[in-house]
Amino acid sequence: MARYRFLIEYDGAPYSGWQRQEDRPSVQGAIENALRKLGEEQPVVQGAGRTDAGVHALGQVAHSDLQRPWKPFRLMEAVNAHLRQDGQPVAILECEERDDEFHARFSAIQRRYVYRVLSRRAPLTVERGRAWNVKTPLDVEAMDAAAKILLGEHDFTTFRSTECQARSPVKTLDTLDVTTVKQHGVDIIEISTTARSYLHNQVRSFAGCLKAVGEGKWQAGDLRRALEARDRVACAPVAPAHGLYLVSVGY
Amino acid sequence: MARYRFLIEYDGAPYSGWQRQEDRPSVQGAIENALRKLGEEQPVVQGAGRTDAGVHALGQVAHSDLQRPWKPFRLMEAVNAHLRQDGQPVAILECEERDDEFHARFSAIQRRYVYRVLSRRAPLTVERGRAWNVKTPLDVEAMDAAAKILLGEHDFTTFRSTECQARSPVKTLDTLDVTTVKQHGVDIIEISTTARSYLHNQVRSFAGCLKAVGEGKWQAGDLRRALEARDRVACAPVAPAHGLYLVSVGY
Repeated sequence: MARYRFLIEYDGAPYSGWQRQEDRPSVQGAIENALRKLGEEQPVVQGAGRTDAGVHALGQVAHSDLQRPWKPFRLMEAVNAHLRQDGQPVAILECEERDDEFHARFSAIQRRYVYRVLSRRAPLTVERGRAWNVKTPLDVEAMDAAAKILLGEHDFTTFRSTECQARSPVKTLDTLDVTTVKQHGVDIIEISTTARSYLHNQVRSFAGCLKAVGEGKWQAGDLRRALEARDRVACAPVAPAHGLYLVSVGY
Repeated sequence: MARYRFLIEYDGAPYSGWQRQEDRPSVQGAIENALRKLGEEQPVVQGAGRTDAGVHALGQVAHSDLQRPWKPFRLMEAVNAHLRQDGQPVAILECEERDDEFHARFSAIQRRYVYRVLSRRAPLTVERGRAWNVKTPLDVEAMDAAAKILLGEHDFTTFRSTECQARSPVKTLDTLDVTTVKQHGVDIIEISTTARSYLHNQVRSFAGCLKAVGEGKWQAGDLRRALEARDRVACAPVAPAHGLYLVSVGY
């Protein structure tokens, strides 16, 4: 038995989420199937972030204990070959052997997410399924200023899915920034956040509320009142999954 | 009759190219079909760049003379609504009325293309169909230095598809730069070029040869000899269409 750490990228569109589910495609299931084809009998891949249905990852981290010893580069190539054959838009970017002190989920101390927004009337084409198309103009400076209200330790019940299974609604948000990135003349609005961990739907709930601020429907004070309400009904409509990316996990 | 100028974005994947063809999907055909649904009888859309099968555009420009008068914003919204209903990944980003001095193709004085390369072993996921996945490491500085050999006026026969219909193989290349752009920790190599016009497959031929330089298979002198050979067989394998974007057209 040896433990391997994987850095993983995926297009979340075809998946019901990271987590393995019966009868529904998942990223975890796709990687475990690839490992099974390499001769592993009951492979289990533990991911750092259990991304939701449709959410993408550029830097998911996972580990797995394998029966057969592998050179990490060969393991990466073999898993990628099977993922590709299976038509799965999942790729292992890095692979290394780790001791069993390392746990992808429990050793993680920071997760970075980015939510991408394209504000324009015209439907998306090359960015379809890769960003949220908001039809109204957005005031990015107002969004960024309001975002700072959410920094630090708070009871984030307002921004928590009713399905969330976390024991406590209290989390500590380290950063939350709204910036504009130019890509070949196209302005992409990026909502970036880092925290040790998040509640279910927390980043998409932030994105939905910050959009309301950007449109001028909400003032910063409305965001503060939503936070202080500690009530799910105070949240603006949650932003769709396809704009969200798990960018990196820190250890 | 009034002339309208369109700024157009599209995902080239499902199309046999910009140009209308019988029995094969084209971007021009998709837009003309949308105009037909708005009551135009024989709409003709003239594009600035006749992009090839699979090539994307972020800033194609076209014009069309319409029988019915439109407010440009309403026309844009109506065309986009039909494109969307038809499931076409094509969008009108801007629309304005122009006098008939303006011709999308013949008034254009500069076309800017970008070719995107992602150099890594792992297959692409979120960038699948959006960049060329080169499996070998590339020396971007060597590529950028060698690219300068191609600047200025030359007989570009080496970099010209045998199907090219241009009268002369002589073109003037204004810029050709190879740079690395970081996107969320991912290095994207961009080959950017501007010229008044190009030969068929010229940018993809440049990209193929510059890849050979980046891999170290070619030295800068090999690129110079390829140019001077004025012979299609001296060209390295042409890069695939899905990495190429028509970014903008200057007037």
